[in-house]
Amino acid sequence: MITQLESARQGILTSEMKAIAGQEGLDETFILDHVAKGEIVIPCNPNRKYQKTVGIGTGLRTKVNASIGTSSDICDIGLEVEKARAAEEECADTLMELSAAGDMDKIRRTVLDSTNLPVGNVPLYQAFKETIQKHRNPAKLDPEYLFDLMEQQLADGLSFMAIHCGINQYAIDRLRKQGFRYGGLASKGGTFMVAWMDINQRENPLYEQFDRVCRLMKKYDAVLSLGNGIRAGAIHDSHDRAQMAEMIINCELAEIGREMGCQTMVEGPGHVPLDEIEGNIMLEKRMSGNAPYYVLGPIPCDTGAGYDHISAAIGAASSARFGADLVCYITPAEHLALPDVHDVREGVRATRLAVRIGDLAKYPDRRDTEKQAALARRDMRWEDLSRHLLFPDIAEAVRSARAPEEKQTCTMCGDFCAMKKGMELFETDIKEKR
Amino acid sequence: MITQLESARQGILTSEMKAIAGQEGLDETFILDHVAKGEIVIPCNPNRKYQKTVGIGTGLRTKVNASIGTSSDICDIGLEVEKARAAEEECADTLMELSAAGDMDKIRRTVLDSTNLPVGNVPLYQAFKETIQKHRNPAKLDPEYLFDLMEQQLADGLSFMAIHCGINQYAIDRLRKQGFRYGGLASKGGTFMVAWMDINQRENPLYEQFDRVCRLMKKYDAVLSLGNGIRAGAIHDSHDRAQMAEMIINCELAEIGREMGCQTMVEGPGHVPLDEIEGNIMLEKRMSGNAPYYVLGPIPCDTGAGYDHISAAIGAASSARFGADLVCYITPAEHLALPDVHDVREGVRATRLAVRIGDLAKYPDRRDTEKQAALARRDMRWEDLSRHLLFPDIAEAVRSARAPEEKQTCTMCGDFCAMKKGMELFETDIKEKR
Repeated sequence: MITQLESARQGILTSEMKAIAGQEGLDETFILDHVAKGEIVIPCNPNRKYQKTVGIGTGLRTKVNASIGTSSDICDIGLEVEKARAAEEECADTLMELSAAGDMDKIRRTVLDSTNLPVGNVPLYQAFKETIQKHRNPAKLDPEYLFDLMEQQLADGLSFMAIHCGINQYAIDRLRKQGFRYGGLASKGGTFMVAWMDINQRENPLYEQFDRVCRLMKKYDAVLSLGNGIRAGAIHDSHDRAQMAEMIINCELAEIGREMGCQTMVEGPGHVPLDEIEGNIMLEKRMSGNAPYYVLGPIPCDTGAGYDHISAAIGAASSARFGADLVCYITPAEHLALPDVHDVREGVRATRLAVRIGDLAKYPDRRDTEKQAALARRDMRWEDLSRHLLFPDIAEAVRSARAPEEKQTCTMCGDFCAMKKGMELFETDIKEKR
Repeated sequence: MITQLESARQGILTSEMKAIAGQEGLDETFILDHVAKGEIVIPCNPNRKYQKTVGIGTGLRTKVNASIGTSSDICDIGLEVEKARAAEEECADTLMELSAAGDMDKIRRTVLDSTNLPVGNVPLYQAFKETIQKHRNPAKLDPEYLFDLMEQQLADGLSFMAIHCGINQYAIDRLRKQGFRYGGLASKGGTFMVAWMDINQRENPLYEQFDRVCRLMKKYDAVLSLGNGIRAGAIHDSHDRAQMAEMIINCELAEIGREMGCQTMVEGPGHVPLDEIEGNIMLEKRMSGNAPYYVLGPIPCDTGAGYDHISAAIGAASSARFGADLVCYITPAEHLALPDVHDVREGVRATRLAVRIGDLAKYPDRRDTEKQAALARRDMRWEDLSRHLLFPDIAEAVRSARAPEEKQTCTMCGDFCAMKKGMELFETDIKEKR
């Protein structure tokens, strides 16, 4: 068993690489070259019976991840299956199963059986929750049990894992030395690992034994996503020294992982003001040698709760534009409650729209769908227009619920339609395509 | 009667300027200076009994406009009143009454009586609709009737008007010469004026008699918004030569209007890809001598119908960041149907959030609300947090509908809360404020 990265380095074009070239309309050699460089990763655990092939990285459409999972307050396996299905129906590209309550093995397996999307997780959740259940103390987490658990989770068919390898004692010192954190700590896995390190006065085992993490991931050809454990949870913490210290290590580890033949990507924030997003992406690309970058929006404010899917969409359009490769959705429930099925749908839609807008700027030569949509709109070919829209069913429902008298137009302007009048005037003049 | 602009030039600080200084937390001399330079406008027709004072321009919070109005398909005065009230409840800053059907005088007056917001309109709508009703031909519009109608509308108390003065025969030649328009024509007033010019083979009377337009606006101290009649309705038309030809003239007219003592702003697009927004704002500011800029989002794609309030929010965050002063909302019904009350609310919310995010980047020294919100979130003071949020009622409703067992946390993570664990660890370390 060799990984996609190792195959590519040997010049072997896998069926997954071929599939990605086809999906993205790119040359197979482009995909091969960029997988070989570690700039494209393909989450694909062979233990999974069937899963959609998805490429993440340089030159590819920016992908959207939807996260689901239970909490101690709301723990319903049926609901998680519904959320997984809703995410897939809304065209998310990947799914993270982030349960932190209930029978976590059963939930993971049930979700894996319910979706065709590549599924990832954060192994520290189950590790710490089970340790707390057993010992009433997360500091009792046994690193050997953690590695065993990761292997068991991978054996179930997970294709990627966010693992908090980059937090070390040095980064925690930076946090203490800077003396502030307006948004506290926002990463569950990261914070519990920091607590473990602090109480035990030991180095992070995922950092110390990074080669072991990589070997485990390689065994299943899963993608290692280097978790952002001390990411900013407030724009005032964005790019603080603590976060940057971890980012440096995550980028260093991305290089080491890549050299070991392990498919690797780096995880980013979090909360970032709009004017810092470009710099954030630049730093990740520069320091990691263009490892794929997986960001959580970012969210460019702290006051949008209830509409943070829109805050994050604003951040995501910029992050995609400047080079983010995979964007985790944020739902309207963010900062407030566990998302429900409606939230999952809204979150995926907002994020898909955001990365579309970002990709139009990232790849200015890939705007043909917009052109076809514009022409169809101009010429009032509504059915053709529908085929180019991101949300054709929703658009059609809005239009037909308020149907116009004249079929060509819509109720926005009724008989006072600029499009129609404009085409009467200029039909022959403006039909050229440049 | 002298205008705010003329007062400021004479060094007279009006009560409106004082109010704006108070609202925005800025020095009165700053407001006075910038009104004098024409960089801040204040829509305030003295014929209006009472209206909220709103400043638009340099150094001020970016403002949000909500547009309402009937169409031939959906024409219900009660609905328009409801929409006006919803926009005000959601904290829009200004309102445009854009009816193009029904008894337009009555609708305008009823809406003016139903809201405290400054109200604007596009006088060409009523002018063309009534001409069509009378003569079945918009080319029969009599310029004298148009000027009379504008005066009558202003006398009713409108505080700003979007008037399509910048379209001239030269710009129409540029449209014909370039030979393409993927999105056709998107402005109703603009397109019908172009038709009038084309059929009558005459220059635009609003351009030819621009001094008369300014005198009329000055008489009521209303703000002249120079309408963007050939704005791009598709990203492939963004910054085409036709649109730029009109922008040059609108910026020229902004300077002439300002010199005449008329409060003036320039209207922008429309559809603009994300990577062209900064340049668009720069051009308007540069060519007009920093006249306030009023943009419609912009919308950075052509395929988001059904979710174009989010497309436009993505554009608006960037336009606000780079210097737009007033942003017209886009609702989820855009491109599909006349907005209903729900759409109005969603549109205002998305736009308020977008300009907040833009303003955090435009004014990096004005981030204190975010800081207070972050600290309240970190310290799990939910009631304090609520006071800083843009949508406190909505956030509270989401949280309480899925209430956590433990009051300090939320159901997102339940007992596995990073914030709580982080504060246990670092409470004394990270309490500094820098």
